Amino acid sequence: MAYELYYWPTIQGRGEFVRLALEEAGAAYIDVARKSEGIAVMMRMMEHAEHPPFAPPFLKDGETVIGQTAAILLYLGARHGLAPKDPTGGLWTHQVQLTLSDFVAEAHDAHHPVGVGLYYEDQKQEAFRRAQEFRDDRIPKFLNWFEIILDRDPSDVRHLVGPSLTYVDLSLFQVIEGLSYAFPKATQRALKKVPRVAALHDAVAERPRIRSYLASPRRIPFNQEGIFRHYPELDS
Amino acid sequence: MAYELYYWPTIQGRGEFVRLALEEAGAAYIDVARKSEGIAVMMRMMEHAEHPPFAPPFLKDGETVIGQTAAILLYLGARHGLAPKDPTGGLWTHQVQLTLSDFVAEAHDAHHPVGVGLYYEDQKQEAFRRAQEFRDDRIPKFLNWFEIILDRDPSDVRHLVGPSLTYVDLSLFQVIEGLSYAFPKATQRALKKVPRVAALHDAVAERPRIRSYLASPRRIPFNQEGIFRHYPELDS
Repeated sequence: MAYELYYWPTIQGRGEFVRLALEEAGAAYIDVARKSEGIAVMMRMMEHAEHPPFAPPFLKDGETVIGQTAAILLYLGARHGLAPKDPTGGLWTHQVQLTLSDFVAEAHDAHHPVGVGLYYEDQKQEAFRRAQEFRDDRIPKFLNWFEIILDRDPSDVRHLVGPSLTYVDLSLFQVIEGLSYAFPKATQRALKKVPRVAALHDAVAERPRIRSYLASPRRIPFNQEGIFRHYPELDS
Repeated sequence: MAYELYYWPTIQGRGEFVRLALEEAGAAYIDVARKSEGIAVMMRMMEHAEHPPFAPPFLKDGETVIGQTAAILLYLGARHGLAPKDPTGGLWTHQVQLTLSDFVAEAHDAHHPVGVGLYYEDQKQEAFRRAQEFRDDRIPKFLNWFEIILDRDPSDVRHLVGPSLTYVDLSLFQVIEGLSYAFPKATQRALKKVPRVAALHDAVAERPRIRSYLASPRRIPFNQEGIFRHYPELDS
């Protein structure tokens, strides 16, 4: 039975981390909210599920409903060979994903520091200040951490964890994609100092299933509604 | 062998979620950074561990080093009977914890919306705006979600997951403690609408090991350095 993915239909957002894992796994899935009446179905699920997700994305696998991006990837990783089988390796992979989640939350807050309920235009000044710290301190600090992990892992410098691809390689690829869209100048500058991260990003983009996915209409283009938004005044 | 917990020694912060689980489990642990030279030891671990944590807290169990609060609780929950043994229940518990993590991050950002590198005094105006949304919209929305979960779980309305205590009961207790310190007026008002959440908080406080811990010097008092800070101008 195909998985059902529930996420906002017009943005990559947090759902994209799940889409990339499903695509790389070659798993059959329905992107429910992109179908006719799909958003209404999603809203009903959130209200009535025995284990209601606090927010999209969530994944339905038979009777099981799983929310929270990192928890979904923990679940899919174990089922599709996208994480180490040993518990220590699996937990370490999850820890890397949780750090990516923190990074993504900060990327969002760079343009929405005052609150999710307000428009960007109502918090431009605050965003200008927050984005400066994000560009100058946080992007380099996070990327350097991933560079260290790639350097320290003994098995293969091309993957964050162990000798083969895991879901965190896909997620780091997606974060670099998003940062390159939102903060092209700052990201290009930062990537020069983390060659292993840059190489991992490029290698993921060349994987056959990922390349095919990125070229398909299933990949929603970046836009000004998602987590990663390009406001030129926030980049430098 | 005793666990080693690594976290900032003067605040409850994210480390407190781990401390509560260790205390309820009756597990032996050393709060390393509160010992002499402990912070230096913590910094060296972050730099040199094979799996370096991005930030405290992290837990050392023999040779295994685990970072990210939710990942640490996933690990401890399975070892100390603080989570369901079946995979679906374990993952659902983890999903609830990840939602609590999001809630905690928003509680922090209410007083630090512009960035972690700036003092509160340098972002007071922005905090005033952000705290308003947090108080009026986010606290009620999150607490209502927990109330629904308590209501919907068929086994026991006193616990978030299943018939007995899990680590997310402890974590929700801690969030209510923190909110009550930081936003006493808004939290008291919000708790009136979620009686099951309020009752769970009170029941956790009465558990023998938790009561003993809260009365001990191991419990660091809330203060103006942690995640939950009381600025009267942000409450109403």
